[in-house]
Amino acid sequence: MEDRKHPIVGVVLGSKSDLAQAVKIAETFDALAIPFEVTVASAHRTPEDVTAYARNARSRGLKVLIGVAGLAAALPGCLAAETTLPVIGLPVGGGTLGGMDALLAIAQMPPGVPAATVGINAGQNAALLAARILALSDKGLHEALWAFQGQAADKVRSSRKELDTLPLAPEEAFR
Amino acid sequence: MEDRKHPIVGVVLGSKSDLAQAVKIAETFDALAIPFEVTVASAHRTPEDVTAYARNARSRGLKVLIGVAGLAAALPGCLAAETTLPVIGLPVGGGTLGGMDALLAIAQMPPGVPAATVGINAGQNAALLAARILALSDKGLHEALWAFQGQAADKVRSSRKELDTLPLAPEEAFR
Amino acid sequence: MEDRKHPIVGVVLGSKSDLAQAVKIAETFDALAIPFEVTVASAHRTPEDVTAYARNARSRGLKVLIGVAGLAAALPGCLAAETTLPVIGLPVGGGTLGGMDALLAIAQMPPGVPAATVGINAGQNAALLAARILALSDKGLHEALWAFQGQAADKVRSSRKELDTLPLAPEEAFR
Amino acid sequence: MEDRKHPIVGVVLGSKSDLAQAVKIAETFDALAIPFEVTVASAHRTPEDVTAYARNARSRGLKVLIGVAGLAAALPGCLAAETTLPVIGLPVGGGTLGGMDALLAIAQMPPGVPAATVGINAGQNAALLAARILALSDKGLHEALWAFQGQAADKVRSSRKELDTLPLAPEEAFR
Amino acid sequence: MEDRKHPIVGVVLGSKSDLAQAVKIAETFDALAIPFEVTVASAHRTPEDVTAYARNARSRGLKVLIGVAGLAAALPGCLAAETTLPVIGLPVGGGTLGGMDALLAIAQMPPGVPAATVGINAGQNAALLAARILALSDKGLHEALWAFQGQAADKVRSSRKELDTLPLAPEEAFR
Amino acid sequence: MEDRKHPIVGVVLGSKSDLAQAVKIAETFDALAIPFEVTVASAHRTPEDVTAYARNARSRGLKVLIGVAGLAAALPGCLAAETTLPVIGLPVGGGTLGGMDALLAIAQMPPGVPAATVGINAGQNAALLAARILALSDKGLHEALWAFQGQAADKVRSSRKELDTLPLAPEEAFR
Amino acid sequence: MEDRKHPIVGVVLGSKSDLAQAVKIAETFDALAIPFEVTVASAHRTPEDVTAYARNARSRGLKVLIGVAGLAAALPGCLAAETTLPVIGLPVGGGTLGGMDALLAIAQMPPGVPAATVGINAGQNAALLAARILALSDKGLHEALWAFQGQAADKVRSSRKELDTLPLAPEEAFR
Amino acid sequence: MEDRKHPIVGVVLGSKSDLAQAVKIAETFDALAIPFEVTVASAHRTPEDVTAYARNARSRGLKVLIGVAGLAAALPGCLAAETTLPVIGLPVGGGTLGGMDALLAIAQMPPGVPAATVGINAGQNAALLAARILALSDKGLHEALWAFQGQAADKVRSSRKELDTLPLAPEEAFR
Repeated sequence: MEDRKHPIVGVVLGSKSDLAQAVKIAETFDALAIPFEVTVASAHRTPEDVTAYARNARSRGLKVLIGVAGLAAALPGCLAAETTLPVIGLPVGGGTLGGMDALLAIAQMPPGVPAATVGINAGQNAALLAARILALSDKGLHEALWAFQGQAADKVRSSRKELDTLPLAPEEAFR
Repeated sequence: MEDRKHPIVGVVLGSKSDLAQAVKIAETFDALAIPFEVTVASAHRTPEDVTAYARNARSRGLKVLIGVAGLAAALPGCLAAETTLPVIGLPVGGGTLGGMDALLAIAQMPPGVPAATVGINAGQNAALLAARILALSDKGLHEALWAFQGQAADKVRSSRKELDTLPLAPEEAFR
Repeated sequence: MEDRKHPIVGVVLGSKSDLAQAVKIAETFDALAIPFEVTVASAHRTPEDVTAYARNARSRGLKVLIGVAGLAAALPGCLAAETTLPVIGLPVGGGTLGGMDALLAIAQMPPGVPAATVGINAGQNAALLAARILALSDKGLHEALWAFQGQAADKVRSSRKELDTLPLAPEEAFR
Repeated sequence: MEDRKHPIVGVVLGSKSDLAQAVKIAETFDALAIPFEVTVASAHRTPEDVTAYARNARSRGLKVLIGVAGLAAALPGCLAAETTLPVIGLPVGGGTLGGMDALLAIAQMPPGVPAATVGINAGQNAALLAARILALSDKGLHEALWAFQGQAADKVRSSRKELDTLPLAPEEAFR
Repeated sequence: MEDRKHPIVGVVLGSKSDLAQAVKIAETFDALAIPFEVTVASAHRTPEDVTAYARNARSRGLKVLIGVAGLAAALPGCLAAETTLPVIGLPVGGGTLGGMDALLAIAQMPPGVPAATVGINAGQNAALLAARILALSDKGLHEALWAFQGQAADKVRSSRKELDTLPLAPEEAFR
Repeated sequence: MEDRKHPIVGVVLGSKSDLAQAVKIAETFDALAIPFEVTVASAHRTPEDVTAYARNARSRGLKVLIGVAGLAAALPGCLAAETTLPVIGLPVGGGTLGGMDALLAIAQMPPGVPAATVGINAGQNAALLAARILALSDKGLHEALWAFQGQAADKVRSSRKELDTLPLAPEEAFR
Repeated sequence: MEDRKHPIVGVVLGSKSDLAQAVKIAETFDALAIPFEVTVASAHRTPEDVTAYARNARSRGLKVLIGVAGLAAALPGCLAAETTLPVIGLPVGGGTLGGMDALLAIAQMPPGVPAATVGINAGQNAALLAARILALSDKGLHEALWAFQGQAADKVRSSRKELDTLPLAPEEAFR
Repeated sequence: MEDRKHPIVGVVLGSKSDLAQAVKIAETFDALAIPFEVTVASAHRTPEDVTAYARNARSRGLKVLIGVAGLAAALPGCLAAETTLPVIGLPVGGGTLGGMDALLAIAQMPPGVPAATVGINAGQNAALLAARILALSDKGLHEALWAFQGQAADKVRSSRKELDTLPLAPEEAFR
């Protein structure tokens, strides 16, 4: 991996067990050449680390935080409480409720402190949302993101051919 | 498979990963000799394809559309927004919530634009609903459909015998 | 109201208490000049009426049925079991669960017998879905429906002006 | 298995795939020497069989019916609509929603036609509820049922000893 | 009210606040001339009363118990644990969750001890289920119940006429 | 109100709008003569107050904390993260989801940091749970609590008489 | 209100009935002196307006979009599909399900196209999240936002005094 | 294992199948040197054992009870009804609903009898909550608990290093 001396996104996992989401996030940031850093800090087991990390984030050069957590997922909200940076919350579908608990615990923030919630286990979307925010002031990133969306569209289109045991719609259907 | 040059149902998958539902739909249409076509188009990744496909559908000879999607399943609604053809929405049970998200996202359309929602992963029912609609103006199909329902009833009845390690109710119970 | 001697849609309420939905359906059918009839028949209290109504429907000239029911809403499925006409199921939000019970009881039909489910209390959409089906073989209705969708779009657009205590987006934003 | 010429409970499965529940029911009835019969009949695919079976039930000597169904589980309600016998509804946890759909579709019956709902996949409890009803007029069954409950209690008590890798509470704790 | 010296159904409210359900139950029992008694006993505040009541029930001549409770509705299960009489559980829609908590707490009984659950706030159905059970050995009640169901059907049919601002389906639709 | 110079329970509201719950808690503590204090501190708007309050609690003489919060109710968990005192979490049924969000956000704490969750809007139970904990080392409180539970039982029993428009179960039913 | 000639946030309501949320958003933007514009465009009734608005947004100078919608809330996702700007989705608690449908329909976006979801009816938080994003490149806004959060904290603290019918925690509890 | 002659926590499983939770509880109590005992008693199959155990608990020297149960989990409430000791309820995620039934059945206790609910399958937290309560009057335990929380924090911190295939945040981020 290339130079990442100056990460601009901080990804905080509530637990090491959320690693799979971090990997999805990392792949997306790598594809877009966005420097980032990853760490583990728990809103309930190491709350002072969460507080310190969030308070230091802006002065350390971070622009967006991503909090990844399952169950009573307080992490994104606790990060958001200590910074004015945008904080993205990624609910993890651990436990027995499929992540509905984490989704509500992240999205239903009280008035005054928002978390930008993405879907359950939606690591790629958490990264892409960060990229959209960062692209507001980074033309190169904007172009990379645009290309990335184009590739996603191309992938959808080329996947049609993989259905060819079924009668496919012709290409003129889309013109 | 026989002549399918003039499909009258268009099946749109939101993602290649919804293929299993397409296969169930295809089997049902084949059994009823309904010509159809399948494609992949995403309301979020290739929205212009969805729009074009829906707008072209009527003039291309399609009479019913089936949108197959999971998660925040916007596809059926987006198809319905661009045509006056009846659009059937088939929620897929992907993700961690068992398809409850897709069911709500398809069924709970705002006033003005309906989607005809069937059950989660209910590919056969999506096809049969299309067949019921088409049979309104196709007597042969009506008879095929009627025969198909008769076969389904026969299958239920003959399945009784497979329970014969248990004491079966006699046939006169049903007269 | 104009000539309705030959209704082509049959609206069945599971209970008189679902009248509000019938009124919404009736207004929409009147606007589109679709002849219809309304009745009350309960899958649990008058099951033989439901069966007879569904079995007679096609020969009586009906083309689409709409079953309106709350709670354990068996009505649409019981209608669908006795006809090959398309049956639209409209879940009513009675009881204490907001209609989630009715939505599931209508949408989650077993393989073989589909009901075309619309949203909770979505009477207008139930009627519009019927209209889309009927318009397949009725060019005048297709045009009426198209005009109706255009009016709905116009209503959305003109509603912008009612927000004028707030800074409005200019019209060129939509070109 | 002993004489079962005169079944007094009729167990109706909505689908052959509900066999596992039938087996649990059968084991319980066998243990209590309650004669029963099993069949398959679908409220949606063979509605006339459901109707006939329910209408014949009382004159055929049945005293309790058990309807076993998943998804939009209309079967117990449709049985109940055609008889005054008590009908027990057993929701099956098929599909992707864990049986919540079937539970609501069985329990939330409209006023006038009750179904006696037991828990999801609770085949044993369905049988035991039937036994409680039958024991009202069968002293021998009452004693068998009482003994059965005693054995269940004994099983709980003896299971304590299987925890003996952990420090067990002494028996005097229960006196 | 007529002679009720020998009640055969015991209705137990978990709280005085469940009175509305008791009234619905009482009206139904009165209509069917079923003698019953009502009391208040809480599984959590007066557990010994619940135990005593359930243990005494059979020898006191009761044949069916109805437990009425909201929230963590343990009452029906606690009654069922202390008797072999059939126990009907009626979940009350108090609290903020619409009675979903009570429904699950009553229906989802562990193997060995069933409660016959009816719908949320379904007082009439609780009474009718008791009547169905009692009618197994009471021919007069069976006839009364049959008449009651007939009246319910008549009420549905006569309610059609109250929709007469809408185009009604003709009576021959039901023949 | 009597001497409360040395509060031993700290009640923290996440928002002034949770006052109704505080009043229920206060009434219960007053009835049991438990000295307490109330304050407002938000896990998201004043996180440092929450941290300080929890860290100071033990040395200030508090023995139990009660966190009262709605929506993404992080307060009880954030208090628990900063003390080893037992922390009771009281979910408030604000918002549109009836408090299901708050219940999950409080109960579903990750391993290592427990919150003792009570029911939605269950202010009295939050106070009584605190009383049970405190009574472990306070014989007088134990007796007061015991008396309180007795009064609750008496209230249930005397409420029976308020049902006297219905046929009441006799007192011997409970012996 | 001051100069708003160059709005940088575009607020799109799916329906005029979402006006209450727009007012909350507007108040917050006014407090922070963020220029914005509001409009109505429906993903289902005026899809081409949604597409055009999203495609024009960047070149018109907008930096953040907010999509406000209830039920099957496709609007935020449809906006996000047509731009690389960050799109905030605000679910509205209309209908009978308390906004759970809208929350899932907005948050559960498929991989590739994120929407930044805030809580149900959380208009203020939608605006504050936009402000956090904009503050990344606007030092004055950062300071205004910081001050706003300080005022929110002050409001929490001063609300303590309004509880003074209850025994308040002393100020030293927070030091 | 060391001396456990005088258990101070009583762990009651509703069924032997809840053993996995008992093991988690036991490991935590062993780590904190808290003497405990385990047993099996069912609120529905051996209610008199539950009653006796709860009534004897205080005089036998127990200070906290933990009730472990799934489905319609009445056990914690039934224990709480018979003692003034604090009772912790641990919902088990058995059945098909992921433990949502057990969570509601334990948490939603009616006014007057609280259960201290922890998360679904959260055996460790149940034990830690008991430890927090016991530590109020046991300085040694308080220190052990404090050390335990410190170890949990250390474990979170050292888990960061296991992510080292990703770019880690530096330690100064937390100062």
